[in-house]
Amino acid sequence: MESPERIRNVARRVAKWHDAGHRMVVVPSAMAGETNRLIALAQELMPQPDQRELDMVTATGEQVSVGLLAMALMNLGKEAISFTGWQVPVLTDAAYTRARILSITGQRILDELDKGRIVIVAGFQGVNDKGDITTLGRGGSDTSAVAIAAALKADECLIYTDVDGVYTTDPRVVSDARRLKRITFEEMLEMASLGSKVLQTRSVEFAGNFRVPTRVLSSLTDPLMPLEEEVNLGTLITFEENTEMEQSVISGIAFSRSEARIMVIGVPDKPGIAFQILGAIAAAGIEVDMIIQNQSVDGIADFTFTVPRADYARAMDVLSSTVKQAIGARDIVGDAQVSKVSAIGVGMRSHVGVAARMFETLYREGINILMISTSEIKISVIIDEKYMELAVRALHKAFELESN
Amino acid sequence: MESPERIRNVARRVAKWHDAGHRMVVVPSAMAGETNRLIALAQELMPQPDQRELDMVTATGEQVSVGLLAMALMNLGKEAISFTGWQVPVLTDAAYTRARILSITGQRILDELDKGRIVIVAGFQGVNDKGDITTLGRGGSDTSAVAIAAALKADECLIYTDVDGVYTTDPRVVSDARRLKRITFEEMLEMASLGSKVLQTRSVEFAGNFRVPTRVLSSLTDPLMPLEEEVNLGTLITFEENTEMEQSVISGIAFSRSEARIMVIGVPDKPGIAFQILGAIAAAGIEVDMIIQNQSVDGIADFTFTVPRADYARAMDVLSSTVKQAIGARDIVGDAQVSKVSAIGVGMRSHVGVAARMFETLYREGINILMISTSEIKISVIIDEKYMELAVRALHKAFELESN
Repeated sequence: MESPERIRNVARRVAKWHDAGHRMVVVPSAMAGETNRLIALAQELMPQPDQRELDMVTATGEQVSVGLLAMALMNLGKEAISFTGWQVPVLTDAAYTRARILSITGQRILDELDKGRIVIVAGFQGVNDKGDITTLGRGGSDTSAVAIAAALKADECLIYTDVDGVYTTDPRVVSDARRLKRITFEEMLEMASLGSKVLQTRSVEFAGNFRVPTRVLSSLTDPLMPLEEEVNLGTLITFEENTEMEQSVISGIAFSRSEARIMVIGVPDKPGIAFQILGAIAAAGIEVDMIIQNQSVDGIADFTFTVPRADYARAMDVLSSTVKQAIGARDIVGDAQVSKVSAIGVGMRSHVGVAARMFETLYREGINILMISTSEIKISVIIDEKYMELAVRALHKAFELESN
Repeated sequence: MESPERIRNVARRVAKWHDAGHRMVVVPSAMAGETNRLIALAQELMPQPDQRELDMVTATGEQVSVGLLAMALMNLGKEAISFTGWQVPVLTDAAYTRARILSITGQRILDELDKGRIVIVAGFQGVNDKGDITTLGRGGSDTSAVAIAAALKADECLIYTDVDGVYTTDPRVVSDARRLKRITFEEMLEMASLGSKVLQTRSVEFAGNFRVPTRVLSSLTDPLMPLEEEVNLGTLITFEENTEMEQSVISGIAFSRSEARIMVIGVPDKPGIAFQILGAIAAAGIEVDMIIQNQSVDGIADFTFTVPRADYARAMDVLSSTVKQAIGARDIVGDAQVSKVSAIGVGMRSHVGVAARMFETLYREGINILMISTSEIKISVIIDEKYMELAVRALHKAFELESN
């Protein structure tokens, strides 16, 4: 919600759903820029902000939004009431700034719904068992929405966001990328974590764990468009295999441009090596994505993994300063100019040859594969960054994902 | 608190007191302009904002401040923890936007003080018995501070504000006005409600009812000034008669420029007239200050009262449209160019002749008195606005209030 005008549009849309007879619970995000403004203020006073106090401060962004949205709805003649996270309450653990939801008591929400009111709940936030305010971290409002939908056994959770759905790949890279009408939550999970930043992984996990049908759709459409049109917009995250006629083996091609690859070369192959390497990286707060350790033939192994490019220099420092010597590695080399491209689809489970088609496509384009990693429903490759767009376009075409 | 730099200064001052061995609870206000910004946002979405939702929104201003101040203190190496109103909890009635404090449970504050921590509590806000956020209205942060000081039986409540104490009158009108080192809470009550806007009436009432020694002092002094200097700054509101050598009968001359006087003339003098007039005014949300009804000699009375000048036109409308006819008044006339000047002092109780000296002074300056109203410790007169400064200066001099 960027402005009072945007809040009014949200209110118009919500009122339209309510007019059609739906019991509505709305979880707005903070106004645009507000969370960042509050974090910047906090950092000005304490460069590494205390996390409990940071949550105290940042939770206000959503609190302002719920009050404003309730008022915008009242101004349209609707009865509405807002709640903070602690008023619901949304009980979380005590991990400030990245708390996990433990339980949601929906009784007060249900009571207000029974009175015919529209209920507005502050997302992104909760309360721990000491009565302190916690926040859920990035994407927290989406997670709140899905969790509340689960707690209330809602028919559907609609996530209005800045994209109009999940695409077969990024339309900025492949112009004829196609919007998926449905996607399984497992595919969505892989899409999200692989860089199609439509919904944060945590909210997708929640939707999956609690089987909440969740639709991602654009907040920029006309709020007064007929409901029978709006219900067909976006992408519905479901829990069945895709049964659409147009189904293909692969649902989408995801990619992540800014990766870095680090190789720890010539490590004596004994138990604990992986732990010593990755333990040091994790202790530095760096997330590791793909990990490969090749078979040792002579008692000497190579250990390769990827990190976000922004953490590359720091990861190299950590390894060179202490780890290299501790584990007796011959060398540590890296490449900060790599990208990841993944083909994703639950159809992959029952279709052989997906990997073969992927590798053949890359071979025909002359793209060298630096790392490969597979799961039940995806195949990822690490390639030189300069070939990333080429690889995405070629794979999108090879798996026949284009529109029409 | 206007900016991060001001918050840092507050933190430095608090840390100094804590270093000297004091257990400190701090009640900061919202950052400058924040409450008005939030109210404007609300009004943009709902011209007459719903009061519950408005409190939901405006309470965030202080919540941000407490988190930021706690962090600023931690950045100075202090242990600090912040609480919202509902976390304390500060229990209030359900009168949104102007709630009254019912009780304060200080246990969580005391527990944290016992750990050596500085406790920061959000002022201006509380929670009602439904668990909804309430705010206390204008000056609410001061009221919160005094109420918390009372609940914790604090030695003293220090109110850092934008003036450096209570003066014998407004120094902008009388250049040699003198800062009072002490003032009784009854005098302070009269000073505040009469326009010396140092502390809101409600916080003074609270200080009086719970006998909280409260010092008003400037937030603009050097936060690192030696404590032995700082403890002599400002004005201490006490509960004993002033025993200072320099004591005079009158402590100060207060005034309120923007008053309006309304006379309901020729009213048949029967029971219920005052109620019918003032009931209609109160129903319109207009506050009435001085009220005079003169003795009826022939069954016909005049009824005179004052209202804030901003409400004058509306009050006249209310009376002319319905009340005049209902009560059979001959006429309703008003004067929107009057001011109120008051002499205040507990010393007045034991000294005859204060009124006489006041009226004589005004007479010698040729100032006509339009209304007179008296209480135990004050005498107020309504005069033509153009004589207001003259009256204040003359009375300040007549009661020997000037410095030295």
